[in-house]
Amino acid sequence: MTTRSTASSALVLFSGGQDSATCLAWALDRYERVETVGFDYGQRHSVELQARQDVRAAMAKLHGGERLGEDFVIDLTGYGAIADSALTADRAIEMEASGLPSTFVPGRNLVFLTVASALAYRRGHGVLVGGMCETDYSGYPDCRRTTIDAMQSALSLGLDTGMAVETPLMHLDKAETWALAESLGGADLVEIIRTQTHTCYRGERGELHDWGYGCGTCPACELRAKGWQAWPGSVPA
Amino acid sequence: MTTRSTASSALVLFSGGQDSATCLAWALDRYERVETVGFDYGQRHSVELQARQDVRAAMAKLHGGERLGEDFVIDLTGYGAIADSALTADRAIEMEASGLPSTFVPGRNLVFLTVASALAYRRGHGVLVGGMCETDYSGYPDCRRTTIDAMQSALSLGLDTGMAVETPLMHLDKAETWALAESLGGADLVEIIRTQTHTCYRGERGELHDWGYGCGTCPACELRAKGWQAWPGSVPA
Repeated sequence: MTTRSTASSALVLFSGGQDSATCLAWALDRYERVETVGFDYGQRHSVELQARQDVRAAMAKLHGGERLGEDFVIDLTGYGAIADSALTADRAIEMEASGLPSTFVPGRNLVFLTVASALAYRRGHGVLVGGMCETDYSGYPDCRRTTIDAMQSALSLGLDTGMAVETPLMHLDKAETWALAESLGGADLVEIIRTQTHTCYRGERGELHDWGYGCGTCPACELRAKGWQAWPGSVPA
Repeated sequence: MTTRSTASSALVLFSGGQDSATCLAWALDRYERVETVGFDYGQRHSVELQARQDVRAAMAKLHGGERLGEDFVIDLTGYGAIADSALTADRAIEMEASGLPSTFVPGRNLVFLTVASALAYRRGHGVLVGGMCETDYSGYPDCRRTTIDAMQSALSLGLDTGMAVETPLMHLDKAETWALAESLGGADLVEIIRTQTHTCYRGERGELHDWGYGCGTCPACELRAKGWQAWPGSVPA
């Protein structure tokens, strides 16, 4: 985290959730030009798309708008139709026998990175930034750094140009992700992420808990709440 | 080409062109269950989608319909909108200064393989078959076997299951591709590929040349014609 890339611009995979919002702040701290890309793959919740705009606007204000460039939303509903799962169909959210949550969309991050790399190529970025995280509870195989390394090689070879995939949250737990946000933008950034991002699988804003909005009972809300409570900074001195 | 995979089923990336039709025949020769997938990414020509159905029907008749399973067409027009190029926009088809044809769509095969792998995962296939070819004139970096090897690793890691990517045409020139078709299905298969597949960039059926239908002047038609003429089998004894 102490080394800085010599590249001057990056494309951030940005869903509007806590993790990718922290990645956006991380990229804005490092790169002179930052663009964002999101994917519409038939998720149940348009609240996520609204959160993306709210977070972008708040961060542009905080970090200085000149670094934050265009936003792109790419329609991947055709892919979403394959990847039938709880995130795309209206099924109960529960852990499956395999140990993977039923929200498992096969290869989701592979598809996102590959499509994002094409956009990055067109937009002149040599760096992708994503919130993939091995320490997450979910065990998604497409979140592991070994997978990302292989994908980085495939993208660089297939595009015939260097395409780095940076994953600043890879080895952080959710409490450490809050700490990273604080180190990047202090209490103001923490407050943006706490109140503007959307993580809840059910797409409910609900009431404002200390850890943010959401239903409070789905696995994503539970994880977020636990991370907040585990972060020492969440308790005012 | 002499070793046979122990897998019993495969998913073929099938565009309706000469190369992928030969791959489909190759897969039908090797696997007990073969399904096909195509991608609609806003190409100019619906003639390709029609060719897919015609070729499938003819091959099912030739090879015995019981091996040929379902066909899928996945809407990737959102990706196509990024990958603005001559294949997706109505521009002149000409070689660019970089040496790549203006039909270059960044990472097209990467995206196709990644999305296809998600479908393969859902459909229980551990093998993808694609017509990527290094000996092609175009020099597309996402057609090289080193790229495909890296992608195979990324897909297998990201899906946490073996996902082989077989590329039977990788080291063949177009004349050898015709020879492969003849070895797989004799004159009947050659005739199907000659008269039913679609390769022309302009989407013209035109008249029936000895090498098939097409405008006869775009790079794809020229390549196809040269390959046919270079194949000794094209001249009746």
